[in-house]
Amino acid sequence: MKISELGEDRLIAQLTASLGRSKDVVLGPGDDCAVIRMTKGEPYLLLKTDSVVEDVHFLRSQSPAKVGWKALCRAISDIGAMGGHPRFALISLASPPEIEMAYWTQFYRGLRRAARRFDVQIVGGETTRTRGPIVITVSLTGTVDKKHLVKRDGGKPGDAIFVTGRLGGSLGGRHLTFTPRVKEGIWLARHFRPTAMMDLSDGLAKDLPRLAARSGPGFAIDPTKVPRNRGCSIEQAIGDGEDYELLFTLSAKESAALERQWRKAFPRLRLTRIGTLQRKSRKGTPLAGGFDHFRID
Amino acid sequence: MKISELGEDRLIAQLTASLGRSKDVVLGPGDDCAVIRMTKGEPYLLLKTDSVVEDVHFLRSQSPAKVGWKALCRAISDIGAMGGHPRFALISLASPPEIEMAYWTQFYRGLRRAARRFDVQIVGGETTRTRGPIVITVSLTGTVDKKHLVKRDGGKPGDAIFVTGRLGGSLGGRHLTFTPRVKEGIWLARHFRPTAMMDLSDGLAKDLPRLAARSGPGFAIDPTKVPRNRGCSIEQAIGDGEDYELLFTLSAKESAALERQWRKAFPRLRLTRIGTLQRKSRKGTPLAGGFDHFRID
Repeated sequence: MKISELGEDRLIAQLTASLGRSKDVVLGPGDDCAVIRMTKGEPYLLLKTDSVVEDVHFLRSQSPAKVGWKALCRAISDIGAMGGHPRFALISLASPPEIEMAYWTQFYRGLRRAARRFDVQIVGGETTRTRGPIVITVSLTGTVDKKHLVKRDGGKPGDAIFVTGRLGGSLGGRHLTFTPRVKEGIWLARHFRPTAMMDLSDGLAKDLPRLAARSGPGFAIDPTKVPRNRGCSIEQAIGDGEDYELLFTLSAKESAALERQWRKAFPRLRLTRIGTLQRKSRKGTPLAGGFDHFRID
Repeated sequence: MKISELGEDRLIAQLTASLGRSKDVVLGPGDDCAVIRMTKGEPYLLLKTDSVVEDVHFLRSQSPAKVGWKALCRAISDIGAMGGHPRFALISLASPPEIEMAYWTQFYRGLRRAARRFDVQIVGGETTRTRGPIVITVSLTGTVDKKHLVKRDGGKPGDAIFVTGRLGGSLGGRHLTFTPRVKEGIWLARHFRPTAMMDLSDGLAKDLPRLAARSGPGFAIDPTKVPRNRGCSIEQAIGDGEDYELLFTLSAKESAALERQWRKAFPRLRLTRIGTLQRKSRKGTPLAGGFDHFRID
């Protein structure tokens, strides 16, 4: 079977199924980051790797500084989605030899801007040549206190489903300039401890079923409540992807308090309750992306 | 200027020149790994990322299990070359969509074999599509006690220069099946604390000048002493690369003791003194790869 028929989730699930796990591995494949218990009583390590590929995640004609921003901020977003602090990054570049030095200088300018903004140290880089498209891989190490770690698997039936910001239309440019929700993720983990959380990289249509599948329950959302960027249809808001907003669940009884305190803490960033986790049902049912299939229960 | 004219070392040096460094970063770009002080009194973290690219580091027709072995063992070798223990790996795959699942299943078989052999946990993986050649990026986290860390920059004039194993001819197949010298690196760090150490990935002709440049001194080697794999010329032993043997320096007065104890500890792996670090001279002189240019001082 070709991997194009299999899809990423099943490919990764099959490849990583038989990996053992020692007791210092708190969380292996399947969440936003791996989680490691390095030293007893100290914060956990969060480990993340993420690649962006020319013609898939960006075009050669687009600003290399923005590509650098995006490459690092995607990984930063994953650390933030577990309630963690991004700390140390390594950058691996596979580059065609004919690219001008100026391209990579500009790229690093964007990288450094993201690193400064989110307090990340770029501690290493390596380059290799390729005859093919540019591939940029970021490896990011973060930290999170044990009591603030938020995984994908704690959602319970009845929990409210929230998203930050507005969704859809990322291809208009926001996919290169988005702001990863690190301080919001840390704030949520400290003050409300969501039952499950992840960042929206592939769109609500793909990511909400992933979150629900890890947690166990089904879900129901009201599509008309999904917060949309200007000019976007509901379908775009649900299916476009690359929003890098937070998707999380919280017990219904805490929801009103969250909404009040959120408005004080982040007056300029919308928070929307879009639905509810439902009783356990049809766990693992695969959902096609898109709007029609977007309800199980 | 195109990056092909610049070369990897100058590209990386330029890109990473203006990166700041906080006090928890013991060592940033320029050594085998980055070194992080995470918790006072606890082992340092070693962070490494490394990519292998189809048609540069391997061919599609070669055994995917061996490619998996190579991809992970290259990064393991870098951790070993600092005296460290490899611990946790993340795997990022950029794959053309038409590749068969069986390819990646076999690839992971090789990965897992390397992981078991060197006590590495594979804690995460991600995949992305590409229209171009396969790019595999391994991110590896290791640990090393502060007192056992061996960097590239401690070599002093008069130090003996050693290499493990035999060099040259890797393209005959060894570049896919080599054994990273982890236990040897750990043993050296514990018992002799080399003044400088690295692994030979690009060949002695490129790597020895790098080591010397980080340490400061010049160097002189006796090319006839370079240990060669069967059928290899001196030029091949010096220039082929992908040996993944250890290159290190040690004070001359400890050299005899090292050679005695090495034979007991590793009776099946050759250790050869190939030369001496010389007084500081022409520091930073760029050396072209290859035999003729292979002496400064």
